[in-house]
Amino acid sequence: MDPRVEDHADVIVDHSVGIEAGDEVLITASPEAEDLVVALEERIGERGAQSVTLGGSSRGRRAFMRAMDPDDYDEPPAALQALVEEIDVAIAIRSARNTNETGDVPPEKNAAYSKLMKPIQDAYMDKRWVGTQYPAPGNAQDAEMSTEAYEDFVYDAVTKDWDEQREFQANMVEILEGADEVRIVSGDTTDVTMSVAGMNPVNDYAEKNLPGGEVFTAPVPDSVDGEVLFDMPLMAQGREVEDVRLVFEEGEVVEFEAAKNEEVLAAVLDTDPGAKRLGELGIGMNRDIDRFTYNMLFDEKMGDTVHMALGRTIDENVPDDSDLEGNDSAMHMDMIVDMSEDSYIEVDGEVVQRDGTFRFEDGFEG
Amino acid sequence: MDPRVEDHADVIVDHSVGIEAGDEVLITASPEAEDLVVALEERIGERGAQSVTLGGSSRGRRAFMRAMDPDDYDEPPAALQALVEEIDVAIAIRSARNTNETGDVPPEKNAAYSKLMKPIQDAYMDKRWVGTQYPAPGNAQDAEMSTEAYEDFVYDAVTKDWDEQREFQANMVEILEGADEVRIVSGDTTDVTMSVAGMNPVNDYAEKNLPGGEVFTAPVPDSVDGEVLFDMPLMAQGREVEDVRLVFEEGEVVEFEAAKNEEVLAAVLDTDPGAKRLGELGIGMNRDIDRFTYNMLFDEKMGDTVHMALGRTIDENVPDDSDLEGNDSAMHMDMIVDMSEDSYIEVDGEVVQRDGTFRFEDGFEG
Repeated sequence: MDPRVEDHADVIVDHSVGIEAGDEVLITASPEAEDLVVALEERIGERGAQSVTLGGSSRGRRAFMRAMDPDDYDEPPAALQALVEEIDVAIAIRSARNTNETGDVPPEKNAAYSKLMKPIQDAYMDKRWVGTQYPAPGNAQDAEMSTEAYEDFVYDAVTKDWDEQREFQANMVEILEGADEVRIVSGDTTDVTMSVAGMNPVNDYAEKNLPGGEVFTAPVPDSVDGEVLFDMPLMAQGREVEDVRLVFEEGEVVEFEAAKNEEVLAAVLDTDPGAKRLGELGIGMNRDIDRFTYNMLFDEKMGDTVHMALGRTIDENVPDDSDLEGNDSAMHMDMIVDMSEDSYIEVDGEVVQRDGTFRFEDGFEG
Repeated sequence: MDPRVEDHADVIVDHSVGIEAGDEVLITASPEAEDLVVALEERIGERGAQSVTLGGSSRGRRAFMRAMDPDDYDEPPAALQALVEEIDVAIAIRSARNTNETGDVPPEKNAAYSKLMKPIQDAYMDKRWVGTQYPAPGNAQDAEMSTEAYEDFVYDAVTKDWDEQREFQANMVEILEGADEVRIVSGDTTDVTMSVAGMNPVNDYAEKNLPGGEVFTAPVPDSVDGEVLFDMPLMAQGREVEDVRLVFEEGEVVEFEAAKNEEVLAAVLDTDPGAKRLGELGIGMNRDIDRFTYNMLFDEKMGDTVHMALGRTIDENVPDDSDLEGNDSAMHMDMIVDMSEDSYIEVDGEVVQRDGTFRFEDGFEG
């Protein structure tokens, strides 16, 4: 086995979710990721924990989604709900031989399936969980890389010094704590403002996402105004959507277009009321992720980018003791803006990042 | 996809477990069996049922078993128990790239793991369930066949006319119903008697095993006396055990030997008290299974054989309204005797099969 798979398993088990004796661990993995599952099982046994492995394949999910009638289902399998209630830890491993595997599922069925499975997603969020990547050939292909080069990319990104990264990102958390208005400007295509007042900025140093490397918060519902061109492509429902342009008024998308697969975007926006509103604002700060790989787990952490997500807010962003509410949508779709040139982030009227360089870094020009 | 995979899925869904709207189906499958999982998911969706797929790999199980300390565990994962309670149907698909994958797990750990997982096995038995085979390369290798020839073998065996087979086997069920003593004699190495009085003989026409093709019942505990040479090899804990010879007195194994891997046999017998007693007597009646393939799911159904299992009794063999008890062991290990030559089965003093030919067939010579 590639020794880096062992290192990856160590980071998951020791850093991200901290597995201890007696823990019940759910692993979800497609067939491609077997090596990482093996390395995890060894560590789970060593620590006196136990595991259950869910092995859904994207081909199987496609077959089910195409065959089903969404009207036949009110809730996800009770068996899956019962299982998820009992676990302490969830490790979700992504990997694909073909990332377009669900590309010919009708968008409305895809959206209905996401909605159906929402209670399961919600239940994961209450556990110690991590989502990570196994460098499978399909993901390498998406990244326009050989499988071997992609392995290097993935393992460099997941086995870095997370303590150092945490400290670097703490500077951005400090700026957002107690802040009110955030403004994102890029070229003449993006100028959007939103309030983050009262929300908790989160320092993601690879606990729930591996790789981690972003600071994210949530906009106050109804506070988002302006327009954004997401100039990095994104994958939705197995299809590439390019140059998404959204116009927000009082928090809601009132105008949308996309240069490619606009109908997918339309279906996503139509999932539920929350799908037309932002649920997250994130700032990518992981400079070891130095290229776009058509994989949001990595792309959203890239240095010199910000991302905004339509849909669900991560619970941690909303303080328990506040009257604020996050976005409760069934979906969560991240979209990225390149901030490396002719761009800036303003917090309460002060520029905190210009052309990718933060105020707390050398070379910053306010 | 091979159209025979579709046929196989049809037999599972329509004949073996009868999937209906609202059913919650648990599929267990290793990565090799993905095609069959895809075909099943399609049918599950068409019928308005839902599924959960457990995807344990044998490499993962090996890593866990080797790393764990059996003393750390009292029961299987609560999450798995909760899941199994909620399902209506369990479909267990066997397939392997390497059937020796757990061959270097210490036998005592293997036995401890079986014991730990027994409540899960018991829970499956209360559901509509089927165990079947996907023709993976490792299984073909065990069978000493090319993968393509093995595919032919498997699909011929699973897609046969099960109504016709049921009628053929009903003749043997009739003989065993109301019978008391069964005697099995083969050459000068096997002569064993046991009582089956009060037990339910079961006609296996591919409901719980696919392929099916046997009639099986359970011996009354303490009634087994005599000696048996199981002259067909068997796989236990990932190892081949050859020429198992057992001597029974008052139901218990009082003497044992094996020509190869005797220590594996010893570990199996030591699992728990029930492991030293028979739990099943089966008569193989599927003549489409015409060769030994080192796979008990097929081997035990072969024409011209009988098999006996150490360990657990299948619940159906013990009538609900009787005082009889079956064997409650954590394990169940089938072992086969070739009955094609110099052999006979006697029921209450009458020969009912000689040299593989049944009393209800042409060519029988009492």
